[in-house]
Amino acid sequence: MELAYEETTTSQSITMKGGDGPLSYAKNSSLQKGVVDATKEMMIHAIADKLDMEKLCSEAFRIADFGCSTGPNTFFSMQNIIQAVEQKHRQTNPETALEFQLFFNDHSSNDFNTLFKSLPPSWPHFIAGVPGSFYGRLFPKSSIHIGHSANALQWLSKVPNQVVDCGSSAYNSGSIYCTGTESEVAKAFASQFENDMETFLNARAEELVNGGLIVILMGGIPDGISLSQTAIGKFYDLLGSCLVDLTNKGLIDEEKVKSFNLPLHFPTAKELKALIERNGRLCIESIDEMTGQVKRVPALPSTENYISLVRAGFEVLIKKHFGNEMVDEFFTYYGQKHLESSFVFGENAVDNTLISVILKRI
Amino acid sequence: MELAYEETTTSQSITMKGGDGPLSYAKNSSLQKGVVDATKEMMIHAIADKLDMEKLCSEAFRIADFGCSTGPNTFFSMQNIIQAVEQKHRQTNPETALEFQLFFNDHSSNDFNTLFKSLPPSWPHFIAGVPGSFYGRLFPKSSIHIGHSANALQWLSKVPNQVVDCGSSAYNSGSIYCTGTESEVAKAFASQFENDMETFLNARAEELVNGGLIVILMGGIPDGISLSQTAIGKFYDLLGSCLVDLTNKGLIDEEKVKSFNLPLHFPTAKELKALIERNGRLCIESIDEMTGQVKRVPALPSTENYISLVRAGFEVLIKKHFGNEMVDEFFTYYGQKHLESSFVFGENAVDNTLISVILKRI
Repeated sequence: MELAYEETTTSQSITMKGGDGPLSYAKNSSLQKGVVDATKEMMIHAIADKLDMEKLCSEAFRIADFGCSTGPNTFFSMQNIIQAVEQKHRQTNPETALEFQLFFNDHSSNDFNTLFKSLPPSWPHFIAGVPGSFYGRLFPKSSIHIGHSANALQWLSKVPNQVVDCGSSAYNSGSIYCTGTESEVAKAFASQFENDMETFLNARAEELVNGGLIVILMGGIPDGISLSQTAIGKFYDLLGSCLVDLTNKGLIDEEKVKSFNLPLHFPTAKELKALIERNGRLCIESIDEMTGQVKRVPALPSTENYISLVRAGFEVLIKKHFGNEMVDEFFTYYGQKHLESSFVFGENAVDNTLISVILKRI
Repeated sequence: MELAYEETTTSQSITMKGGDGPLSYAKNSSLQKGVVDATKEMMIHAIADKLDMEKLCSEAFRIADFGCSTGPNTFFSMQNIIQAVEQKHRQTNPETALEFQLFFNDHSSNDFNTLFKSLPPSWPHFIAGVPGSFYGRLFPKSSIHIGHSANALQWLSKVPNQVVDCGSSAYNSGSIYCTGTESEVAKAFASQFENDMETFLNARAEELVNGGLIVILMGGIPDGISLSQTAIGKFYDLLGSCLVDLTNKGLIDEEKVKSFNLPLHFPTAKELKALIERNGRLCIESIDEMTGQVKRVPALPSTENYISLVRAGFEVLIKKHFGNEMVDEFFTYYGQKHLESSFVFGENAVDNTLISVILKRI
């Protein structure tokens, strides 16, 4: 699900491939669309149950999407939220119409030009793009009624320093991600996630109005399972093996590969719950995890499309670390290896989970 | 002053040259900076005198710049407004700090990516980009405390239909702009301006909070003078003559030139005042016109820089009408003719005016 997504701090700002060309994120985000669809009902019910419209008296209803990328999924999510809020509003206050102001947030390196150009025609709401890391304040105090973040919070603000330090016991030179099998490495990533979530929750607690909600959808792992056993882990293994192969062919510097780590952490639902409770600024209205259906919901794309999806999601990251020169070669090689290995996402692996959380500011 | 600027409706969305290259608007907006500097004191005094902070109780103070382009002038204007509001706020409410949310508006074809990347480092305010024509609603009701628009409102939402209709008495085939000497043509442009200003004022009246201000700075002409007699008119004459020359050389289609009109109207202060009064939705706190010093304030650039300024301002417009192919040739030719004719902006011409208006929603 997180094949293509984005996030991070000023030091490591990762965004999806911009534009609307055949390899862009805008054209290659069908897997993420599955998450939007899978959680639509859940979100509509949550808003119907948890949102206290009378408490939220305001002329404008403000919704923010944290980690919006270039669309179109962010528009679907926004539309789902608006539909739910309007339904609720009609029940409590049928004589007045709400005005919606929608804020699309992502890093300032995100392609906002493409986002703005791809807005649905005659979109009847007020919109704004908000550049900046969501690991920090983005809005004035008490100004957002509903926050939303899908497929974004598993991206850390940065790779923890220790995992790229060859003198550290948490040095992670053997893999491009936190497999979960090296305990010092796993601790470093978990600790970074803890800090980042704390920053995220503190910022959102300030920005939400009293009674405001935040809906978080993010990739996770089942309890007791390491990431390397999951579908996503197997995919990262394949991606990493391509880097190693190109190193053996002398096309990439070995040190470069050793210092390359994906700034990602997939928590368990239990771990995430504990962090939110420890932070204590927002109240958990619900926390659920879905498995199985998440993988099946988005119709799995053809192999060719799948390779485009991977490129849309990882090109910016790969280019940033390894430079422009090897990017085409890398993805061509990845495509070949993918075909030769008959890699099917999720096969022979434990299903990842999709964690959905509804938090309220009270 | 308006050498490089932007505006229009969905049908004619004109923006400045994006990016931050040597020919971009971001690097070629020093003339517009002059306007910002010339009006800084005026704006600070207006805010000090006219803004009733107690009435505007709000956790966040929201400022919108209508027609922001790619910066950096929009940042200077915003900074001037913030400085004035903070000064005023300290006098009335010294114990609390205001949070500012700044909205940068321009057409969705504007280069927001460059705008966001060129934000001053450590800019301490919340920001958002708002794509869309300001000849229409852009914000929820009563949500903006101060609106600002510099060098933008002389750009009409579109070229009036009649002036490009060869069967109309207002057909303007002899010039690329409204010289002011053909009365039917002048009427058509004035009427378009009237409609556009009405739309602009109605939209802003809805969006401003009670007691909110809007500061308008726009190019104008002195009473009793036609645009063709002014510095700006002489410049358009030179620009138009280049199109005619290239037509005579067989490089541009004659019909294309005849149907090319700049969607611009420079009002007199008196004309603008009458429109605002007739609209009646916002109260005129002050209306002034400056001459002379406007031309002198920005140190006039070298000839080479001047040619870049012209290109930054007109490339998008020229490209849109005539196609990509002739753009380089056109500006190279313009550069030559400019040098050969020893054209100096403002020489042997009546000074244009800069009209500054402060309106309040009461």
